Amino acid sequence: MDLNADLGEGFGIWRLGDDEALLDLITSANVACGFHAGDASTMRRICAAAAERGVAVGAQVGYRDLAGFGRRRIEYAFDELRDEIVYQIGALDAFCRLAGTSVRYVKPHGALYNTAARDESQAAAVVAAVAGYHPGLPVLCPPGSVLAQLATGAGLRAVAEGFADRGYQSNGALVPRTAPGALVTDPDQAADRAVLMAVEQRVVAVDGTPVPAPVESICLHGDTPGAVTAAGRVRAALSRAGVELASFAG
Amino acid sequence: MDLNADLGEGFGIWRLGDDEALLDLITSANVACGFHAGDASTMRRICAAAAERGVAVGAQVGYRDLAGFGRRRIEYAFDELRDEIVYQIGALDAFCRLAGTSVRYVKPHGALYNTAARDESQAAAVVAAVAGYHPGLPVLCPPGSVLAQLATGAGLRAVAEGFADRGYQSNGALVPRTAPGALVTDPDQAADRAVLMAVEQRVVAVDGTPVPAPVESICLHGDTPGAVTAAGRVRAALSRAGVELASFAG
Amino acid sequence: MDLNADLGEGFGIWRLGDDEALLDLITSANVACGFHAGDASTMRRICAAAAERGVAVGAQVGYRDLAGFGRRRIEYAFDELRDEIVYQIGALDAFCRLAGTSVRYVKPHGALYNTAARDESQAAAVVAAVAGYHPGLPVLCPPGSVLAQLATGAGLRAVAEGFADRGYQSNGALVPRTAPGALVTDPDQAADRAVLMAVEQRVVAVDGTPVPAPVESICLHGDTPGAVTAAGRVRAALSRAGVELASFAG
Amino acid sequence: MDLNADLGEGFGIWRLGDDEALLDLITSANVACGFHAGDASTMRRICAAAAERGVAVGAQVGYRDLAGFGRRRIEYAFDELRDEIVYQIGALDAFCRLAGTSVRYVKPHGALYNTAARDESQAAAVVAAVAGYHPGLPVLCPPGSVLAQLATGAGLRAVAEGFADRGYQSNGALVPRTAPGALVTDPDQAADRAVLMAVEQRVVAVDGTPVPAPVESICLHGDTPGAVTAAGRVRAALSRAGVELASFAG
Repeated sequence: MDLNADLGEGFGIWRLGDDEALLDLITSANVACGFHAGDASTMRRICAAAAERGVAVGAQVGYRDLAGFGRRRIEYAFDELRDEIVYQIGALDAFCRLAGTSVRYVKPHGALYNTAARDESQAAAVVAAVAGYHPGLPVLCPPGSVLAQLATGAGLRAVAEGFADRGYQSNGALVPRTAPGALVTDPDQAADRAVLMAVEQRVVAVDGTPVPAPVESICLHGDTPGAVTAAGRVRAALSRAGVELASFAG
Repeated sequence: MDLNADLGEGFGIWRLGDDEALLDLITSANVACGFHAGDASTMRRICAAAAERGVAVGAQVGYRDLAGFGRRRIEYAFDELRDEIVYQIGALDAFCRLAGTSVRYVKPHGALYNTAARDESQAAAVVAAVAGYHPGLPVLCPPGSVLAQLATGAGLRAVAEGFADRGYQSNGALVPRTAPGALVTDPDQAADRAVLMAVEQRVVAVDGTPVPAPVESICLHGDTPGAVTAAGRVRAALSRAGVELASFAG
Repeated sequence: MDLNADLGEGFGIWRLGDDEALLDLITSANVACGFHAGDASTMRRICAAAAERGVAVGAQVGYRDLAGFGRRRIEYAFDELRDEIVYQIGALDAFCRLAGTSVRYVKPHGALYNTAARDESQAAAVVAAVAGYHPGLPVLCPPGSVLAQLATGAGLRAVAEGFADRGYQSNGALVPRTAPGALVTDPDQAADRAVLMAVEQRVVAVDGTPVPAPVESICLHGDTPGAVTAAGRVRAALSRAGVELASFAG
Repeated sequence: MDLNADLGEGFGIWRLGDDEALLDLITSANVACGFHAGDASTMRRICAAAAERGVAVGAQVGYRDLAGFGRRRIEYAFDELRDEIVYQIGALDAFCRLAGTSVRYVKPHGALYNTAARDESQAAAVVAAVAGYHPGLPVLCPPGSVLAQLATGAGLRAVAEGFADRGYQSNGALVPRTAPGALVTDPDQAADRAVLMAVEQRVVAVDGTPVPAPVESICLHGDTPGAVTAAGRVRAALSRAGVELASFAG
């Protein structure tokens, strides 16, 4: 099982999350590439630190929207979105190169993640960017999403991820953030869910139904000190359960 | 002899210069990388068009300053400038990769060009970026500049360029834009000067003195329709004089 | 009848449209405020030139999206959109103040114009911004739009505008740009349509039906040299027809 | 005596400093205007909160440089700098207007503060912006600086400020941040220095010399939790010493 997290999401003087702490817990680092967050010096530093620890670096590509942190849907033309994603992957790859490695996968961020999960045009733009840049790069995305389907159809590897700290509906979708049960705030419960995902490939939905969760990676959050602690519990529980942790992009 | 020009200096809806006309005249294209000008779709288009024509693509790297078009000196910290240059080269290289080629050289733009010609810290940042990314990439810069010296000292190839349409002082420096004789506005005179540079490696300074001009590339301007015509005259005159045109980055 | 046009839509070194030519034709200038286009020095210059000619200055407010020229829909939170509109109006008002005048109306730009015409949340954000800043400022928008309704409901004056160079459907909506008949390219035909709008408050739809056009302003386009000529014909035809030209924001 | 501090220096999702805690300690709030930091919703919130508490709002104007937080010197043309300052003051004034107040003074930020203290062109741009927008607005700046002189010469009020937590040289200049004694890290010592400044209008330089400090305002820092505590000590010590706290912009 792979553990991934978003890193390098500051900009200039502003910081967000505890990149160092997360790097010690994860096997795959989704590094922001400067469009929704991230700057060149941060990208350099994180690529170097990830390479040192053997953590795989992925391009966390997003909308050009620092003010909205890439969380506002933007109606991009197909070409513009595809090209901006290529641009971001290339920029990050430069820092990987300096660290003796290379970008190993791509994960869309925020509103692009949500939109590409359902919207054919934006999903196709992500797929076209990755296929054009390097068809060997997997795309990290929700299982069964439009993005996963289009990626697979284009000969790319779609890697499904799950969330140990989010509630699921019985149809396999996440509980919306505004609904009850959206967040699993108890770290131990999150850790138990991660183990269930890793060992039995399923989750228990908010209504108690067991739901298949065929995921190859679990996403950890690290925006708050508490989140890092919880992420540590997830990792520890997986280790205790004998789950081998390694990047899918190995 | 190489002919280089700045391309892709629009942004979004805004255009600047006639990229297509210039691509047919030059052997090396300095492509803007999105910091002082340039956007992803323009970069993609120009890399593809340059590759088709066998024109070498160089990264025209600049300050992060769209509002000032990279023409205002910014006092960057060494690390930040180095890293932003790496970022820009990597982003452009992605589009070269899509076009079946790669970035073949680096040229600083605007205030970075002028500053790195004299300032050790900024010159060193350019050199560190190029050496880190790919020590085989030449740096296009003024002959005898601090940048040229530091590049050579670091084992990079410094390629000197001259300007057919700019006046020179007897010490080899350009006449400042605000002084008389700064610009050579007559296209035929510019063409003659280009031939003299290419064939005899010298220019005639504003005071009539002959000045050595050991350049491997001549920079053409194309911001105005008149400039494109003048650039065409330079190319034609060089051909008539039997000067072989080919990129230094061949 | 009022004639309005978009002005100041360049950014830094990049220009768009012929601001000076349009200023001599119009009675109301929609000045870009720096978010989708426009910069401080351009805003200053246009406010001064408009004040000199007695042209009313309006805030052409848009999304924060220079790369997309404000033409891509962005799903803003209500508060963020409202506040960014207030910001833009205030910035433009500063330059009006320097020119001895003040912002006299507000017009949304591009995707915000289209979205606020139909979407309650974005329309409400425009209305809240204007009502908060100065409830005496009219909002320029399509007749019958959601924006017009919410503005009126909030006690603001909604000023309806029409397009002499765009085709209309029999339901009063514009023919989409991708459909036949979207554009009226013949300047004299555009001029005739403007006169019909001004004198009889109606247009002829693409299917020949007469359609009411209760507009107080006609929008002129000026992005191309041809468009400025066409705009001149519209103005001349209105004058010949005895239509008095004056800003609605009188 | 006035106490001022920089507020609203986040951007979008990113926060910096504890605005709420500082608002309860200061009499004048230097609010970032969106160029080096700050966004519209933050500006709105802080103007409202400041107005509620009777804290004067000043425009903390800076270079257009979010990536560098306005701390890198940029060689602006006079006009561009002047106009961007006008733009920022106007934008902030819109939010003041919504809060029933208005911008009461102007303070340059970061590299603009340091540059305008010595450089005639940039100082003149600040002065021209303020004089053009509203000649009744004071400019907050270092005592004896070029900015103070030009402001006074143009009929503006220059308000001198001092730093309780910074070391001074015997000539009245601050000890550079890289030299020993640059920072006064002991909160109680900072508080004592503030009282000395307020009551006797002097400081003790690092070499022990008494130096005149004819300041009307003391700048408090609040970027770190410790800084807020120290700022609270300064305020408490001034109160105990019987110093009346009120904004100079009263």
